[in-house]
Amino acid sequence: MRIQYREAEQILSEKLIKTGYQKDRAALCAQLFVDASRDGVYSHGLNRFVSFIQLNQEGYVKPDAQPKVTDRFGAIERWDGQMGAGMLNAYSAMESAIQLAQTNGIGCIAMKNTNHWMRGGNFGWQAAEAGCIGICFTNTKPNMPPWGAKEPRTGNNPLVIAIPRSSGHIVLDMSMSQFSFGKMIETAKKGEKLPFHGGFDHEGKLTKDPETVIENELSLPIGYWKGSGLSIMLDMLVTVLSGGRSTGKIGEDEVEFGISQVFICIKPDLFGTEAENEVLLNGIINYLHQSELLKENENVYYPGERTLKTRKENMEKGIPVDEKIWEEILNL
Amino acid sequence: MRIQYREAEQILSEKLIKTGYQKDRAALCAQLFVDASRDGVYSHGLNRFVSFIQLNQEGYVKPDAQPKVTDRFGAIERWDGQMGAGMLNAYSAMESAIQLAQTNGIGCIAMKNTNHWMRGGNFGWQAAEAGCIGICFTNTKPNMPPWGAKEPRTGNNPLVIAIPRSSGHIVLDMSMSQFSFGKMIETAKKGEKLPFHGGFDHEGKLTKDPETVIENELSLPIGYWKGSGLSIMLDMLVTVLSGGRSTGKIGEDEVEFGISQVFICIKPDLFGTEAENEVLLNGIINYLHQSELLKENENVYYPGERTLKTRKENMEKGIPVDEKIWEEILNL
Repeated sequence: MRIQYREAEQILSEKLIKTGYQKDRAALCAQLFVDASRDGVYSHGLNRFVSFIQLNQEGYVKPDAQPKVTDRFGAIERWDGQMGAGMLNAYSAMESAIQLAQTNGIGCIAMKNTNHWMRGGNFGWQAAEAGCIGICFTNTKPNMPPWGAKEPRTGNNPLVIAIPRSSGHIVLDMSMSQFSFGKMIETAKKGEKLPFHGGFDHEGKLTKDPETVIENELSLPIGYWKGSGLSIMLDMLVTVLSGGRSTGKIGEDEVEFGISQVFICIKPDLFGTEAENEVLLNGIINYLHQSELLKENENVYYPGERTLKTRKENMEKGIPVDEKIWEEILNL
Repeated sequence: MRIQYREAEQILSEKLIKTGYQKDRAALCAQLFVDASRDGVYSHGLNRFVSFIQLNQEGYVKPDAQPKVTDRFGAIERWDGQMGAGMLNAYSAMESAIQLAQTNGIGCIAMKNTNHWMRGGNFGWQAAEAGCIGICFTNTKPNMPPWGAKEPRTGNNPLVIAIPRSSGHIVLDMSMSQFSFGKMIETAKKGEKLPFHGGFDHEGKLTKDPETVIENELSLPIGYWKGSGLSIMLDMLVTVLSGGRSTGKIGEDEVEFGISQVFICIKPDLFGTEAENEVLLNGIINYLHQSELLKENENVYYPGERTLKTRKENMEKGIPVDEKIWEEILNL
């Protein structure tokens, strides 16, 4: 079924107020959940709302907790997320990183004690909408084996990079595992195999079987040792800069909470104008679009390109949501 | 054969002076080449020296050109590399990014009109030696197909991330292609196959045959569409921030020159002390080292861990160099 954006936003907002969120915070939180589904990231949108409310009810996420600045120096700040809602904390942090970039050309916020930001891409779009380059990354619980290991001891640690462009922002939102658990669960439900190796089996052999990967929690890092290395570096960066918990520390608890994140913004129109940047970016995009294609019916896309199509469709037709999930949301 | 570090450095330095480099610049350039080989990155160390000298002789790299600051705002600067030696330009840029981080907590230099920095990891080690987190990335000529294409229209755009640690810096130095051309050429010479898919054949099918990949210039992005997306974002970032040439523009010339790079430094001991950071980093490293292993004789390493072992061995025994290549260097 499909729900209109405003309707979904309003209902989520009501449920959040009921859970203990102040009105304006509930509205923003609802918006970020609906934005994720609107843009096609269903796994971190409406599909995740019920479990988010549960985390609040269980005390892992604190509805009334607001992040606070603990340290400041030049263009960099350290924040304590105080175990508040991850997406609200991340939104505040990106807002401040944008301000730091306006003042200093570049700015950085490192935040400890925060929670899952759901769809990371939201904060890339946020920076781009404000005319800034946004780079942010997070650690997670251990959910991916570092290269050479047969147990999950690093995170899939998503990385977001966004570049503003008046004719359509460019936004990359990727985790360090080849496939998201959402994608693998979906493929397993259909009884299908993954299109490429997605992880390891019990004997450490690469497999395309999603059930095996999910069962073992042994998803494949992108590019094998390379994605493993990048995931380790991102965990180290967020941990050292925020003074917060590393993937290993997060994994000591049964539930994922109290994670660490970094938000960097750069003002891109200080030396070149917005129009000059547009020419440079369009040059790159046109060059990509003119590629000779592997398969006739496929295209080369820039990161974020298909998001705009999905967004348009979902705003027109309504936002797709599983009937059962929507029922669960209404019953909260 | 093996050459002692000082001997190699001295000989390279002499050849650089002969090519038109001032004494101190020749010494630093020689050092950076020998450092690469010392740390095991032979493909971008002594093995690359003869072709570097040729680029100077052909006028693509200008021995006497020094980078200049063209714009400044807060903690960010734009530089023009003036077609000078890529590794000397990069070293200067990282020095200034370190200074900006000392003053502002974070700093960023974007440089256009520079050249191949050879081993990017050198500049990560440089930042870490100065007690800074260093992040730098570069574009290249088109040498990798963006996802969906059957021709190279993006670069393998190496990314370097370094974190200082008194008991051994952590340095990731990776390109966006699954295997370097150096590695593929080496494997092809032995008549062997790559251990994993390394690129595409004429029909766009994944292959482990290095010769096929090299011939088609169709190396595989790490994580398929993900590494493709990351490579595109890095090209866009260096191009927009520096106002310089994109991968597509670089590809309009036969020879790779006049590329674009970004250098970001962050001071990691502003809010947490060096000792506190050490505890956090060692916690992550110990957690990784304690992983249950896929194969008994393999280990889980943090990025840069094996570099230190190679460095120690090569400083003791001398730096490995192919006899023919050393002969060519001596004959320059």
